[in-house]
Order: sequence, then structure tokens, then C-alpha cells
Amino acid sequence: MQASYGELRPPERVLMGPGPSDVDPRVLRAMSTPLVGHLDPAFLACMDDTMALLRTVFQTQNRFTIPVSATGSAGMEAAFVNVIEPGETAVIGVNGVFGERMCDVAGRCGARVVRVDQEWGKAIPPEAVAEALRGVRPKVVAVVHAETSTGVLQPIEEIARLARAAGALLLVDTVTSLGGVPVTVDAWGADVVYSGTQKCLSCPPGLAPITFSERALAVVRGRSRKVQSWYLDMTMIEKYWSGERVYHHTAPISMIYALREALRLIHEEGLEARFARHRRNHEALAAGLEGMGMRMFAEEAHRLASLNTVCVPEGADDAAVRKRLLEEFGIEIGGGLGPVKGKVWRVGLMGYSSKAANVLALLSALERILGRTGGVAAAAERLRAA
Amino acid sequence: MQASYGELRPPERVLMGPGPSDVDPRVLRAMSTPLVGHLDPAFLACMDDTMALLRTVFQTQNRFTIPVSATGSAGMEAAFVNVIEPGETAVIGVNGVFGERMCDVAGRCGARVVRVDQEWGKAIPPEAVAEALRGVRPKVVAVVHAETSTGVLQPIEEIARLARAAGALLLVDTVTSLGGVPVTVDAWGADVVYSGTQKCLSCPPGLAPITFSERALAVVRGRSRKVQSWYLDMTMIEKYWSGERVYHHTAPISMIYALREALRLIHEEGLEARFARHRRNHEALAAGLEGMGMRMFAEEAHRLASLNTVCVPEGADDAAVRKRLLEEFGIEIGGGLGPVKGKVWRVGLMGYSSKAANVLALLSALERILGRTGGVAAAAERLRAA
Repeated sequence: MQASYGELRPPERVLMGPGPSDVDPRVLRAMSTPLVGHLDPAFLACMDDTMALLRTVFQTQNRFTIPVSATGSAGMEAAFVNVIEPGETAVIGVNGVFGERMCDVAGRCGARVVRVDQEWGKAIPPEAVAEALRGVRPKVVAVVHAETSTGVLQPIEEIARLARAAGALLLVDTVTSLGGVPVTVDAWGADVVYSGTQKCLSCPPGLAPITFSERALAVVRGRSRKVQSWYLDMTMIEKYWSGERVYHHTAPISMIYALREALRLIHEEGLEARFARHRRNHEALAAGLEGMGMRMFAEEAHRLASLNTVCVPEGADDAAVRKRLLEEFGIEIGGGLGPVKGKVWRVGLMGYSSKAANVLALLSALERILGRTGGVAAAAERLRAA
Repeated sequence: MQASYGELRPPERVLMGPGPSDVDPRVLRAMSTPLVGHLDPAFLACMDDTMALLRTVFQTQNRFTIPVSATGSAGMEAAFVNVIEPGETAVIGVNGVFGERMCDVAGRCGARVVRVDQEWGKAIPPEAVAEALRGVRPKVVAVVHAETSTGVLQPIEEIARLARAAGALLLVDTVTSLGGVPVTVDAWGADVVYSGTQKCLSCPPGLAPITFSERALAVVRGRSRKVQSWYLDMTMIEKYWSGERVYHHTAPISMIYALREALRLIHEEGLEARFARHRRNHEALAAGLEGMGMRMFAEEAHRLASLNTVCVPEGADDAAVRKRLLEEFGIEIGGGLGPVKGKVWRVGLMGYSSKAANVLALLSALERILGRTGGVAAAAERLRAA
């Protein structure tokens, strides 16, 4: 063995990247509670609370609303793998990394993928979905509500109507919206909606909240062949989370302790107040960045409050600026992915990280690094007006 | 929303079931460290430490030795899904729930499954594997090193030799052995070996340590079709854990903090001392149970130190005894699964839970509940002799 490994002493950071976000100390404390067993009556009660609290943030009555025992990306996989059988058609909106990933995941399930492509930074127009639906009989229509790679918020209502008219299930990715901007599963009429814990829920990464409508569950139960993933097979997982409590895999107990506490915090704050907070800080940040002469990337009509994309200003070195932010100011922001790598910065204002103090600290740091002014003043004025 | 959700206050338990085991307070403390980002240089260093420490417990030089971002069962799925392609043959030893599960998982990957069945409570004889290998050209041979459902420790050496001679990869499930009894990946010549964190590593559930030999990695890279699971696709995950650091999914940071600390504790104790401790406490427990006139379930030559199975004594009510242990004494033990449901109890002595005090507390509680004597005395004598 190697000589020695030191005590864990990570530096202090302000997490304003695309996730994870900062975590409330109450969540960290709940997470570090000594464990009970995964079939202990006390834990089963904790599971029930978690399900009830998740239903409120998803704004759904769906009985089957649980955290998948893996990160948000596994939520995406769980959504597709349970409802798709080989040869079936999936119509997928693609305007960023996560729509692209959906195509990859669906393809691995044997789906025939029909893409609805849209320029990065813009929302997918319902007409393009309608066009794609012509002449196909899709099993699912899938869209990303909050594209973490572009900062675009996708309107769902009209696409949901089209999916229903086509007899398809609607799958929605709400990884970067749940708990920060309104996610209204029942009002949308969405069938499978998943998220991650490390964004607007402000819980450490490791779980993927997911909800299935009864219609979606009927599809899963009526499959002609087994779900290709044993670990994500909802026909079995359902029996652990429901009254039967049949062992499937050992639940990630500490993570569920953390999630329950993160959801309690949302419950205490109230959804409407939380959404307003996210919007207020987003508007202050955008005002500040524009006040410094920078340009937002996502089109104005569809900007996501929780994840802000701003164009890297001419002459600035993407990686060097982010490195200085991290090393000199302890602030993490994200770089661009794929075609916008080097071209945009991604600034998360999610959950516990969505604070006026963070907005001002970042703008102040950027003013100093970029040699610009006007950011902090513009943001402060916007915050005063709010 | 519902009126209110109280503070998380689970009861105090001594975890002596089949997992999770009790967690050292140092691990809980490390887990609750405020987060940094999953691409932060400080986190990348933490990942490197974790890989190095995992190599020491797996006793391997395999470069690709990482924790999968999900529980132990996902480790099993990751093992099969990466190396199996549809139509290929998997020879699988089945002498308990987890061998059975392997068949299910392999079948979902499209494998032709050749079972090597053995009575529960006994190890799989190499001759039966040799017999099954006759006339087939298997892609993998898979066995469970530590059957959590029966408490049987499976010798690996001879089966490894047979797998190699047949040109197959050897997959080994060490969920309930890693960190508690010797797991010698390189000495075995095993190709894919996975585990879980919540057993002998005494870390909360949520990660699946896994190691791939270069031979196995070559198979994964040479596949003719994509891995059917995007989430568990090691060709992509490899790029995040290696020098390239390409984003795949957001790592479960807090869980990896916890695992690193759990592995540090093992490093400090030393593998040999830790194995000796597990063996000593197992022997004391078996002596105590036998001293009370109870009968161990697993055959003596192949008993697992970390997971002890004992036959439910005639006249005792399985569920009622376990309920009293939990409610009156705060001790969790496990019931039987499948064909041994109601017939055996499963007592885990894993990691931080493997303590003489726990052995004595359980025996004392059982003496009182069952109205028997001789357990504590026999265990104490064995501990004195050790």
C-alpha cells in the first residue's frame, strides 16, 4: 500500500456551475445521520415522506413518484428503458447536449429515433414537433424542459397536446428545472418526468427523482419483453416503494435522508416563493452581465432562471477566466459543451446557490478579471427594484 | 401540500443484517463535507485517491478500478452489460439469490445462460463448472464469491483456471466479501470484479466498486455494438476517470467523499488485521450460536466470516424474533430469502459492525428472546482464546 492518504480537506467553493449546487448545512447534517436498515419501519416511513414531498415539487398526484438510486442521467435511462421496446419510434427534441443524449439512450433501447433538431440556444417550436409526428406512430415524444447546456427553458404545453393527439407518451427531462422553476406534471399531462438531486433541489448528486403516470405504468406492465436494465426495471422497483416492500436492491439510505431534508426545506420555503427567488436572482445576474456589456446566449423569451448562459466576450480566454474565478475567488462556473465549447459560460443559480450575494460576488469577480465595470451596479439596482 | 414533515429522527440501531452495516462516524463526517464540483481539481485528486485505495482492497494493479455511481446491484449490471453481446454464452454458478440474479441480468443482455446449479448453503464444485463448460464456447464464467443469501464463501482459484482454459472472462461478485475477507483479483486472474459499499467497506449504500482487467477492457472496446446501458457504458465512464476527464454524468460527490474515508480507515487498519478481526468475530458468533444449541446453515468448509446464516430453531417464530430484536434491543438481523425464507437468519458482521461487543449483545438478546443459555459464554470463551 501507498504510504498515506491525508484527511479530506477540499477547498471552500461557491458552486455556480451547471451542478452540483451548494447544499444547505441542514441537508448535509441529515445525510450524516447514522443509518438504519433499508427495510426498517423507520426507513419505510422516510421513503413515504420522500414520495409525498416529491409529488408536491413535481406537482403531480402520480402514486409512483420515487428517487431512482443513481444520478440524473440514470433517470433519463430509466425513463426510456421502461417504456421503449425494440423497433418502436421515439420523437425527440434536440437543441442541446441532453436532447442529443436522449437520442443515444433511446437508440440503445432499440428505438427508431426521429429527431426534431433546433439551433442551440432556442426552444423547439411545436410546429416542428407536429411536422415530425406526421406519418409516424410514436411510442414516445421526449423533450428537455431545461437544457443545461444552453440555458433554454422549453415550453411543454403545446408539445404535450401534440403527443397526446398522436397517442404517444410524453417524456420530459426536468433535471435543471425541478424545484427552481415550475414543473407541472399533471397540468402538462406528461407521462414520465425525471430530474436530478444536485441542481435546484440542492441535495448532493446521487439520486434521480422520477414520476410515472398510471398510463405510463400500464405500458411498462404490459411490455412484451423484460426491461433491458434489471437495475432500473420499474416493475420490480415499484414493489419495494409500494406496500409490498419487496427487496430489490439496497436503497441509498443516506442519500434519501439528504433528499428528504432538501425537500422539507422546499416545503418550508414554498414553491411559489422559491420560483420567485430563482427568477429574481436570474434577472439580477442577467442585468449585471448585460450591464458589463456582455451578451446572454439563450433567446430572451426562453431563458432558464436556474441556468444562465452568457457569451464569452471577445478577447477573453474561456478557461483562464474560469480558472481565476475558481482559484482566486473560490467561485465555480461552467464552460460550454459541444458546439458552444469556448463560446459560452454557464452560470447556475440553483437552489441554495440562488442568492443575491452569489450574484454580486460573481459579477464583482468578473469585473476585476475582465477589467469591466457596470455589472454589480446594474444587478444591485435590479435587486432593489424587485 | 401536507401540513408538516418532522425533523429526521431515526431510531438508533445496531446493523447486523445483510447490509447496510454500521458506518464509522469518520465516514459520516467526511460524507457531510461541503461539496466541490465534479470537475474541480480537488475532486479529481479525491477520485485518484479513491482509485488507488480501491486497488489495494481489490488486491489488483488494474488501472480501471472505480466506484460505479449506483448501488452494488448496478455493479453486477455494469459487469455483464459491458462484456456480453446478444447471443453470447454466459456460464453462471447459481447457489443463492445473487447467482440467480446474475442469470436474470445476463439474460436481459441477450446472453445464452448456462446455469451451474448447486444446493443453497454449499459452494459450487469446480467439477460442475468443468462439466458445464464442455462443448460450449462461453464469453464469460460468472460466480458469486460471497453469497449474501446463504453465507457461503466460494473458492475462486479452480474456477478461474477453468474459465481461462475455456477462453472466457471471469466475473466475480464480491459484494459481501470486499474489505472483510480476502479478495485477490490479480492472484485469481479475474477479469471483472464488483462490490458494494454498504457491506464490509462500511460506507453507506450508493456506490459499486468495480475493477476491469486490461483483457476485459479490450473486450469492451472491441464490441460490435454499443453497450445497451448508456449510464453504465465503461467506454465513456473510463474517459471521466482517466486523464481525459471528459464529462459523462455528475459523480455522486458526497458518496465518493464517504468511500474515500472508509477506504482510508481500511488502509489504517491494514487488510490482514481486518480479515483477522472479521474471522475472529465470526468464529465467536458461530461458537455462541452453536453453544445455544442452534445450527449454522452454510457448510462448515465454506462459511463466510462477514455474513453468518443460522437455522431458525424449531418452534421459534422467524419474524417475531427479528421484530423483538429490533424493537427491544435495537439490533437488526436479516431473514432468509427465496427457498430459505423463514428458515434462516442472516447475521452480518461486516466492517464497523464486526465487533466483539455486537456479537455478545446479539447472543445475549437471543438468549433472552429464545429462552436459551450458553451463547454468550461460548462466544466469550472463543474470544478469550483468539
